[in-house]
Formats: sequence, structure tokens, C-alpha cells
Amino acid sequence: MSLLEQINTPDDLKGLTSDQLKTLCAELRRYIIDCCADNPGHLGSSLGTVELTIALHYVFYTPKDKLIWDVGHQTYAHKILTGRREAFKTKRTYGGISGFPKISESPYDAFGTGHASTSISAALGMAVAAELDKSDEQVIAIIGDGALTGGLAFEGLNNAGARGTNMLVVVNDNQISIDANVGALHNYLISLSTSKRYNRFKQILWDFFGATGLRWLIQKFVKTTKSAFFGKSTLFASMGFRYFGVIDGHNLPQLIHILKRLKHIKGPKLLHIRTIKGKGYEPAEKEQSVWHAPGTYNIDTGERTEAANENRQVRYQDVFGATLLELARQNDKIIGITPAMPTGSSLNIMMEAIPERAFDVGIAEAHAVTFAAGLAASGYLPYCCIYSSFMQRAYDSVIHDVALQNLKVVCCLDRGGLVGEDGPTHHGVFDLASFRPIPNLMIAVPRNESELRNLLFSAQHPDYSAVAIRYPRGNATGADWQQPFAYIPPGSATLLHEGADVAVLALGWPGNLALEAALALKKEGFGIQLWDMRFLKPLDPAVLEYIAARYSKIVTIEDGVVSGGLYGAITEYFGTAASKLSIHGIGLPNRFIEQGALPDLYNAYGLNRENIYNTIKALF
Amino acid sequence: MSLLEQINTPDDLKGLTSDQLKTLCAELRRYIIDCCADNPGHLGSSLGTVELTIALHYVFYTPKDKLIWDVGHQTYAHKILTGRREAFKTKRTYGGISGFPKISESPYDAFGTGHASTSISAALGMAVAAELDKSDEQVIAIIGDGALTGGLAFEGLNNAGARGTNMLVVVNDNQISIDANVGALHNYLISLSTSKRYNRFKQILWDFFGATGLRWLIQKFVKTTKSAFFGKSTLFASMGFRYFGVIDGHNLPQLIHILKRLKHIKGPKLLHIRTIKGKGYEPAEKEQSVWHAPGTYNIDTGERTEAANENRQVRYQDVFGATLLELARQNDKIIGITPAMPTGSSLNIMMEAIPERAFDVGIAEAHAVTFAAGLAASGYLPYCCIYSSFMQRAYDSVIHDVALQNLKVVCCLDRGGLVGEDGPTHHGVFDLASFRPIPNLMIAVPRNESELRNLLFSAQHPDYSAVAIRYPRGNATGADWQQPFAYIPPGSATLLHEGADVAVLALGWPGNLALEAALALKKEGFGIQLWDMRFLKPLDPAVLEYIAARYSKIVTIEDGVVSGGLYGAITEYFGTAASKLSIHGIGLPNRFIEQGALPDLYNAYGLNRENIYNTIKALF
Repeated sequence: MSLLEQINTPDDLKGLTSDQLKTLCAELRRYIIDCCADNPGHLGSSLGTVELTIALHYVFYTPKDKLIWDVGHQTYAHKILTGRREAFKTKRTYGGISGFPKISESPYDAFGTGHASTSISAALGMAVAAELDKSDEQVIAIIGDGALTGGLAFEGLNNAGARGTNMLVVVNDNQISIDANVGALHNYLISLSTSKRYNRFKQILWDFFGATGLRWLIQKFVKTTKSAFFGKSTLFASMGFRYFGVIDGHNLPQLIHILKRLKHIKGPKLLHIRTIKGKGYEPAEKEQSVWHAPGTYNIDTGERTEAANENRQVRYQDVFGATLLELARQNDKIIGITPAMPTGSSLNIMMEAIPERAFDVGIAEAHAVTFAAGLAASGYLPYCCIYSSFMQRAYDSVIHDVALQNLKVVCCLDRGGLVGEDGPTHHGVFDLASFRPIPNLMIAVPRNESELRNLLFSAQHPDYSAVAIRYPRGNATGADWQQPFAYIPPGSATLLHEGADVAVLALGWPGNLALEAALALKKEGFGIQLWDMRFLKPLDPAVLEYIAARYSKIVTIEDGVVSGGLYGAITEYFGTAASKLSIHGIGLPNRFIEQGALPDLYNAYGLNRENIYNTIKALF
Repeated sequence: MSLLEQINTPDDLKGLTSDQLKTLCAELRRYIIDCCADNPGHLGSSLGTVELTIALHYVFYTPKDKLIWDVGHQTYAHKILTGRREAFKTKRTYGGISGFPKISESPYDAFGTGHASTSISAALGMAVAAELDKSDEQVIAIIGDGALTGGLAFEGLNNAGARGTNMLVVVNDNQISIDANVGALHNYLISLSTSKRYNRFKQILWDFFGATGLRWLIQKFVKTTKSAFFGKSTLFASMGFRYFGVIDGHNLPQLIHILKRLKHIKGPKLLHIRTIKGKGYEPAEKEQSVWHAPGTYNIDTGERTEAANENRQVRYQDVFGATLLELARQNDKIIGITPAMPTGSSLNIMMEAIPERAFDVGIAEAHAVTFAAGLAASGYLPYCCIYSSFMQRAYDSVIHDVALQNLKVVCCLDRGGLVGEDGPTHHGVFDLASFRPIPNLMIAVPRNESELRNLLFSAQHPDYSAVAIRYPRGNATGADWQQPFAYIPPGSATLLHEGADVAVLALGWPGNLALEAALALKKEGFGIQLWDMRFLKPLDPAVLEYIAARYSKIVTIEDGVVSGGLYGAITEYFGTAASKLSIHGIGLPNRFIEQGALPDLYNAYGLNRENIYNTIKALF
């Protein structure tokens, strides 16, 4: 029986010897690598935090003490050590445990995450609660250097530092998010770890760790580290935090020693550790971006299953990346912007080819949009590519900086609709409803990769205002997209199927399912007139009037929540009509959708050919 | 003819002598004080930036060089000097010029603002554009120390500092936003201005300014200031900015000298100046919060017209502030949170009485909500009061940190609907539509102050999930609200008027207008059944079914955009009904609404008794 198999709660760690803990690290790492080979996940981040996780659970008393993991994809070791060793095999699957911390999943998951930069604010809330409760519980936020670039993290630091509340922020500095980190803070962190101070600190630490932890020694240690590291000399000290670091995040005894000591220091403290993303698995250490979430792989060869498949299908993001470069080569006013997702969005294609006009701004969605607005005010045409659920962070920037000023920014909403295994934090299902009320903003939803390409092209046209072009995660339809550009006028719907009985209005890729349903129903003698609306806004009034004059039954189909999106737009449009129209909305329910493989989710929520077919047929 | 009357563009400043510029400062200040006495505005901020504005326009070549004023309410001097001296008398009125910078108003307004913390990101966009254009135009962001606490400002600094693009950030440090500033950064800025370095710098400056600006001298100056101020020693230097300061922001010759020199220094630069909010008008200097936006006043006595009126009407915010304190005294789990608006939201009432449970977190809306979520996760019940249009900045925090985790946070949306003179940046008209699709979140809109009070009380009940309680700016209806609390069940509509012909569903205060219309129509023999829906979500299905069974004509009334809010909810609800219902939506159009006195705006957009009366009557 391995050591790992004996750990059912963090309490089981407490009695282990230093050697046993070291063995446990190796077992834990191996278990993560094994499990992720078949059931893919965020491998690199979790390998990097094995020692930190063990040290935290060894030193602190969870779940009374609270660990808040920023972003949360580094929590595999945490999950395995907190009673979810077997359940870990189901991670990210439909009905399985989440790949992120989740309050409802375990009392050890103090706060759910998924989006970056929330941990310090949430931890401060808990730390203030502990203060009010006069409880001695400890609150620890663990945040990567990438997540630290988000404005919310700064707001959290600024408040926590001023208040003096007891809390610990561990900066897990691996110098990478999904892609390489950017920004002044990044440079600053590098300067800290390469400074003389770092080496001096290491010396001091080891001088002390030779002896046992007598009280006077701890005091002296604190005093010494204080004078060595605390002062006006660091950014974090300026923010009111006592700064400790830089520590090697893979040196378990050292981590345990310093965490034990930090427990006894009051006020806001920041521990800066260096880790290696992918630590302990050679392929992952070597190619950190690729192994952030590598998909399935062969453990021994390090060969990634998907990468081995040369015929992999074209994804929407590939079409975005290739098309944007093509357009940017023709139009020197085009700028590309991504907040920390060059690989994920495929903006890396333009970044390599035209680096002076393609920007990775780090995890900073609001900045990405307001920066784009500044460029637009100076005559440039920014294509700002942000995942739909992350765009929620730039909602005010879209309203206040782009739309209100009628500045032309093309908001490319990648990962619109369900995203699959990343689950509810990442599903992009509120975008249609929340963007629709924004004036001066068009909303286009391509049905396939050709339409995406042509919309990206068309957005340059003077008839377009600012526009959101929203497309899904993952594989496209296989359409032959590498064709000459064709202009799509704003608000123009397109007829996919003719029929006399029921009108179906579809938005985005579900229109393809509707077409299959229409063809099947035609064989049975039912006539479906199917429109690909292409635009949620503006709507095509000619088409809508035509439909209202000829049909009494309308079905809308979309892959966002059926509340405020296409169904909302169409029912509003016909609300005053006093006609006998009945309008049926197919889409996602107004609740948070769980994780799972996309087909499972689509089946669960009726976004499949069968349900569309059945729903329409039931109207006859 | 005064000097001021001779300044029609900033070019007219260039030939003035030092003495003339000084005189101009005095004239400008007097003109602002005169104009604001009758036509109220943001007096304090604009008095504080008179010298800075003149110095910037004197040294730089606007509009080619770009000034981006963060928040923008400090721009009165800027407006007056850039061709809007006469138009300034119309500021903030219906049809007049804006109280904020506005691209469409003047080429000198490089970027529109209103919300805080956007200037650095926007300026970086323009600076990058200038770089790409190989233009020598200068880009200057002017940001207050309050706005600097917003995460977006940090994201902007982090990107600008790393990139090395030429730009200047002027930190206008007056140690106050609307209320006193908070946060670690605030403490840090104080430490800078009280440091020895400040005095040393002053000495250096004056040594140089004794001589003329020879080239070697400038070089030496730059070199000296560099060694004195630039290094790892400041937070801003850590962010990649060359830091210069602290400078007295009311010393015009000194400001002009340093700005001239900074023009020739490449890369990201930050100039830290100290100013006094309300400078030059004694009452405003003494009571800075009160005189942030004092309303009308008597110039000579400094008596504020509104303050003099002892019988002023109760405002919604007064009811919020008083009720929250009352509830917090009964329920020790209640926490109050405001992002930098203690006076504006009336949370100051609780802050004074129960300081340990009432928090001003600075301009940091996302932090306010995520901090609240952390408190809720630890068993507290936060009432987080944020102006509706500012809540757009916390949209993701509401979804990701509150609703997804089903944590109970009471989001008090003050300033919902139109706000009047602050105009389109501040109108809170997208809240209903953007919040409606969020699962696990109720949305309540009280019709008057009694309902507001009872909703604040009821939100504690276990039947309530997280809830947004949304109420307007300004005076309430005069209802007798100081009554014992009454519980309002979630989703319960209430009947205001009985009638057989048309059903009217109202949300919020416009229900009062609808009642007047119903009473008037009754006299003419028309029967209106009027419901105050009270909740946008959940809807009251019993009421809706009852209505659908008895009425064929429905009118909805709300004070948000008629796109996604109540009209959207009701048309969606009845969409599938296949009934003969016709639904008419009264509300605000789906466009940005201009500034103006509320009655003017309501009349312009038909949110008045007459239009409601006419719209309903036209259905007969």
C-alpha cells in the first residue's frame, strides 16, 4: 500500500516524517501524471504545486484554516489529499468532480474559482469574518504571478494591505500563465528572484534551519527576515504587505519551515515562491504552454494523442487566427489583442507574423477592451479576442469606453456557448443576453467557419459599428472556409431551408442541427422555413415581417440561456403584434450548466438534432 | 476685457507671460465658481486642477497632443480654455455641454470618461497608435489618487510600464475621491509626499530654475532627478515608470518647467503632484466631500441652497442608509460595503455607528463584490451598495463569485434608471437586462421608500437567494416609510388598481405614474388592472396566469432599456402561449440617453404620466 493510499484527509499528513513527505510528493506527482494521461486536465499547474500543497495542508489545519486557490486549476494535489483520491479519476467529466475548487464539492474547497485574480478579495472577506468572529482561523490565498496581473488582484492587495487583517498571500511564481507572462510586474518578479537579496535570504534560512525551532530563534528569524526583506524596498511592501521570499517552491522542508513561522506573524503577509510549471515530468517542464492542458498522452513517450493526429479538425480559433493575419496583412490599421490567451485564441499567429500590431496584455480583460478603445480613438481597428465568460469582466469597458463613444472595436468572443469540461465558470452562455441591450453594438454569431471568416472580413466595412463576433470553442464544422472573402451586410439573415408550415430562426452553429431536422421533417411532409439569423442585433426586419405575415408558429434556436438572447429578441419584436404567433425557444435553461463532454451536455439540455426535430414536430 | 475672454483656444495661452498666466488662473477659478453657483457641478475637483490644466495646455500642443482626463469631472478649466467658455454655462443641462470629456463634443476631448480608472489604458492605446504612426504626438493621462485604486488603472500601468511606450501619467494627488481615500496606495502616496526626498527635490528644482533652460542643464536636471527619484525605490518604478515628484500642483511655474522637461524624456513617466480639492474657494477647501458637487450656492456666504432647506425630501439613499443601520443593529451578521461612495450611498450612517462591520473599499467595484462573496462564504450577510452603472464593472464578480456559488449577497443597486445631469456614463439603464439572465439571483425594484425598506428587511429571510435591490437616485415619493418592517415574499406582485380592460405590469417607481393614469382612465370609463410586479425575477406566475386568462392587452412599464428587462421577461413568458395577447412595452429606448434634468429626460422619453396615460388609452 502506497503512502498516498493512506492519506484520506489532511490530518493523515501530520504524523509523516520528512522522508515520508518527500516520498508522498513523488507518489502524488505520479498519480496526477497517470490520471491525466487518460482523463486530460490542467497538468502543468498542478505538478508545479505538489510541494506547496503538501506543505500547506501539513502546516495549517484545513478545513478550519481556509485555502483559496486562485484560478484553481493547480488544485489536483489538493483534491487528492482532501478525500477525493478516487473521485479524482472522474475529474472534469459529466457527473464527476470539478477541475476547479468548488464549495459544494468539499468543505476543503473554501472558495470556488475558475476565473483568475479573485483569491485575495475573497480571502480578505474570510479573514475579516474570522476577525469579527474572533476566530484564530488562518486564511491563505494562493495566486500565480499571471493571475496577479488582473486588476481585481491589485484591488484586493490594496485593501488587504491597508487593513492589517491577518492573511497570507502565497505568490506562486512560475513566470508563465498559459503562455509566457507579460507586464511590468512580471519583470519585477524576475528582478526579485535574481537579486542578491534572494541568495542572502537562502543563506539566512539555512543558518537557522540547522537548529531546532526555539522561540528566541523564531523571533530572531522574523526580525532578521524583516530587516532583510521588509521595507519600502518592494512593490508589495508599498502595498502594505510584509514580503518574504524568494523561496524555492519545490523545497518541501524549507516551505514547511517558513509557513510554520509565518503562522505566527500577524497582519498581511506575502510569501513569494518560485516553482516550475510541469515540475517532475520532463515533457511538461520542457514545453510549458503545450502541457498546460495537454489532452491525453502516452506517459512513457510523452507523446500527446491529439498532436499525433495530423488530420485533426480545424477549430474556430484556427480560422480566427489565420483570417485575422490575412486581414491584417491587407489592412495596416488592424490590431490584434488578447488578454493572456495567445495560444488559446490563436492570436499567436499574428503575434509571430506582425508583432508590432498584435498584443498580449496579460490577464486584464477590461484593460484589453479600454486599450482597444484608445487605439480606435486614434484611427486603428482593434480585433480584441476574449473568451466569452472572461468578457464578463470587461462589460463596463464595452459599454463605457467602446459603445458609448461609438468607437469601432471588433470584440471577438471566443468560447461562446458551452465549453465542456471546464464547466460553469467557463461556459459562455450569458453573452448574448448581456450584450444585446448595449446600444451601438452589433452582435454576429457565425454558423460555421466560412461565416466566421467572412464576418471578420466584413467588420471592416463602414456599415459596421462596433461588433461582437461570437463563436464556439473547439472544432468547426468542416466547411471549406479557405475561399475568397464575401461581404455580409449587418443584420442580414440567410435562408437555409424553404417550407410552408413552421418558421425556424437559428443563431450560430445550432442552425446546422436545425437544417438536419428540417430535411428529416421534409421527408415526412412537414415544411420548415429555416433562417440563419446570423445577427442577434440588428435583426433583419424584412425577414421578420415576411415571417409574421405567413407563419403562426416560430421556433428560435440558440446556444445561450433562453432569457434575453434570440428568444428574447424575437418575442420582444413580436410582442406588440397582437398576432396569433406562438414562439418556442430552444436553448439553454436559465441555470448554471455543469461540466462534461460537449455531446453529453448538448444531449442533457436538448441542443441536439433529436430534440430540435421533436420540438418542431410537436408543433404540427 | 479679461484675459480669460481672450482665450478661445489653447494656442492663445502660448504668448502669455508668467504673470498673465497667474492672472488667468485667478480669472478661471472665479469663472468656475461663478458658473457653478447657479448651474451646479463638480466644483471641488475642477478648482483643484486649474494650474495643471493651464500648464498642460501651455506646454503641450492640444488637440494633436492628447489629454485623457480620468473620471473627467475635473475638466471645467479644460473645457473653458478649449473654445467652450460660453457653452460652459450650459454644462450638464439638457442640450448643453457635458460635465465630462466627450469625444463628440470637442476635438480637445481626446477620450470620454465618467467612470474612473480608464485613462491609462486608453492613453496607452493612443500612445501605441502614435508609435505605429511614427508621430511625435504626446499622450498624457491625468488620474486622481482615488481613481488609481481601481484595478483597471493597475492593469494599464502594468502594461504601459513594461512596454516602454512614450506616455506621461500625471497623478493628481488630493488625498480624496468624493469621500476620503482608503487603501494601501493612499498610505503610500502620503509617505511619498512627507518624505525627505520631497523636500530634497524641491531644492534641486529651484537650483535649476534659477538659470535658463540650456540643453546641458536639462540633461543634468534629468540625470539628477533620475538618480534622486528613479530606482527600485518606489511602487511606480517597480511598475516600469520613471517617477517624478512630489510637485506642488498649484505652483504654475514649477509645473510648466517640469512638464517642459518631461516632454523630452522617452518612455513611461509618472509625475506625482499634490493639489487641494476646492483650491481657491474657502468653503470648498474646508469641506471637501460636501463641495465635491455642492449643488447651487451663494458665492459670498458659501451657503448651499439645498443644505439651507431643512425640509428637503427624503432620498432613496437616506432610506437605504437608515434602514441598513437599523437591520445591522438587529442582525450582527450584516455587513455594509461601498466602493468609495459612503456619502453618496449613505453607508456613512452605518460606518459611523458600526465601523467594524461597514467598509469603504475605495474605487474597486469588482473587489467590493468578491470581498462580499468571501464574507458570505464565512456566514456573513453583506449588503453591497454600488451605483447601477458602476456595477457594470462587477458583472463577472456577481456571476462567478456570488451567483454561481449561490452565496447570499444583497446587491443594493443605487442610481438605477436615469440619473439626470451626469448623463450617459452614469445612467443605470442596463442593469435589469444584464442581471436578468444570471441564475440564483433575484431582482427586486421597489416602487417607493417603504418598499425599499421592506425589501432590505426581507432579503434576510431564508427564502431569498442573492438578490439585487435596485432603486433610483434622488428624492423618494414621500411615502411614510418609518413603519414596522413587513415581509415581502420573493416574486410577489401586488395589485395597485382593479379594472377589467387592460392589464398593466409596472416595475419600480413608474408604477406610481401608472396608478395616476389608471385613476384618470377610470373616470373616463376605462378599466385598468395595475400590478406592481416588485420583482423582475422571479416573476409571479399566478398573477401572470390570471392575467393571461382574462386580458388580451398588456402594458409593461419600467425605467430601464426596453430590451431584455421587464418587457423582455413578459414577452418571453407569454411567447409560447399561442394566445392573442398583445404586449406593449413602455421604458427607455435602446440607445444612450443624454444628460439633463430628470423631468426633461422623462418627458423626452415618455416616462411621464401623460405618455403612460396616452399609451394605455390608445389600446381602447
